[in-house]
Amino acid sequence: MKLYGYFRSSTSYRLRIALNLKGLAFENIPVSLVTGENKSPEFTQRNPFGSLPMLEADGRDRAQSMALLEWLDEAYPDPAFLPRDIEARYTVRELAYGIATEIHAVNNLPVLKYLKDPLGHTQDEIDVWYRHWLARTLNPVEARLAQLGTGDFLHGDAPGLFEVVLIPQLANARRFAYDLSNSPHMTRIEAACCALPAFAAAHPDKQQDAT
Amino acid sequence: MKLYGYFRSSTSYRLRIALNLKGLAFENIPVSLVTGENKSPEFTQRNPFGSLPMLEADGRDRAQSMALLEWLDEAYPDPAFLPRDIEARYTVRELAYGIATEIHAVNNLPVLKYLKDPLGHTQDEIDVWYRHWLARTLNPVEARLAQLGTGDFLHGDAPGLFEVVLIPQLANARRFAYDLSNSPHMTRIEAACCALPAFAAAHPDKQQDAT
Repeated sequence: MKLYGYFRSSTSYRLRIALNLKGLAFENIPVSLVTGENKSPEFTQRNPFGSLPMLEADGRDRAQSMALLEWLDEAYPDPAFLPRDIEARYTVRELAYGIATEIHAVNNLPVLKYLKDPLGHTQDEIDVWYRHWLARTLNPVEARLAQLGTGDFLHGDAPGLFEVVLIPQLANARRFAYDLSNSPHMTRIEAACCALPAFAAAHPDKQQDAT
Repeated sequence: MKLYGYFRSSTSYRLRIALNLKGLAFENIPVSLVTGENKSPEFTQRNPFGSLPMLEADGRDRAQSMALLEWLDEAYPDPAFLPRDIEARYTVRELAYGIATEIHAVNNLPVLKYLKDPLGHTQDEIDVWYRHWLARTLNPVEARLAQLGTGDFLHGDAPGLFEVVLIPQLANARRFAYDLSNSPHMTRIEAACCALPAFAAAHPDKQQDAT
């Protein structure tokens, strides 16, 4: 498998964790979001979204990280990202998709760039924007975790779809000096995950294109 | 089942279509996004996200439309929203999640309100923003549909997860005067869906809270 990604892309980070957890060997191919390599004709012919990550796997160029995570879990079911029980699967997906659908796009690089140009906002205003949308979804995630009464992981004794999505989001939050001191559930899960080699090796700082 | 939604919320619209397609009876309970009923303590205790839709079903208050659609398809499998074949499931999810993760949040009401206040942008600037993010994802979706060579539906001879997500997005696009004249694949699928009673009855204009 070949993973086309960028060290700081949180969706690429999701895939690096996921492939590591599944024990799937992959070649990590850096694509620069800064120089816009992802918008080249060669790349968009393979992935019309011009987005990262793209996974070349089983004879196909695949985009969209959430679709990729669901596909990986169906094509390579062991270890599972989702519980077997339908109710427990819903519990995991509610929080994983909460983060994936409510935070990601709003705080993604193209939107931050657009706020700067053409909209003319300062970096300070953009930082306030960033933390505003983080809080708007991370606070509910924390509240739901409190309601559910979770341990080191949302479900059972191993990370799954939720943790794969949460950890890159928290890394972004820390980069933007977001206050996590009132989020004991998320930070406990974060500590448990970051102690695992699959997560540690996927960290942005460990990638060959890290700057 | 009780569906807490708002007529113009595209994620509520997804659920109305989905419940109709599954043949599940539900009580539609309007919650006003305009007056902020969704942020009341009574509501956020049940759904910490304070988001719509919320589905009260099988003894549980459920949020997050994509998690709900996946749950509905597992709990009520007939008719299926996803094909059985793993590769075909990926095909459907790539485009469904492309729309759900890249467009929804950026063009959702809270972001549009934030652009107005505190950021001080005009309605014209907000309309340009709206169409910019639509184009950035709908054009790739159209390109992928062309690569795949689809008919009236993305997969097989009935609508599924992709159509449930696409149709509300196209309704929003039309409301913001987005040009769909170069999108023959999406508009063909739209026409086929809108001819079906499950989609027609779910349209925002048909809801009791429509204004």
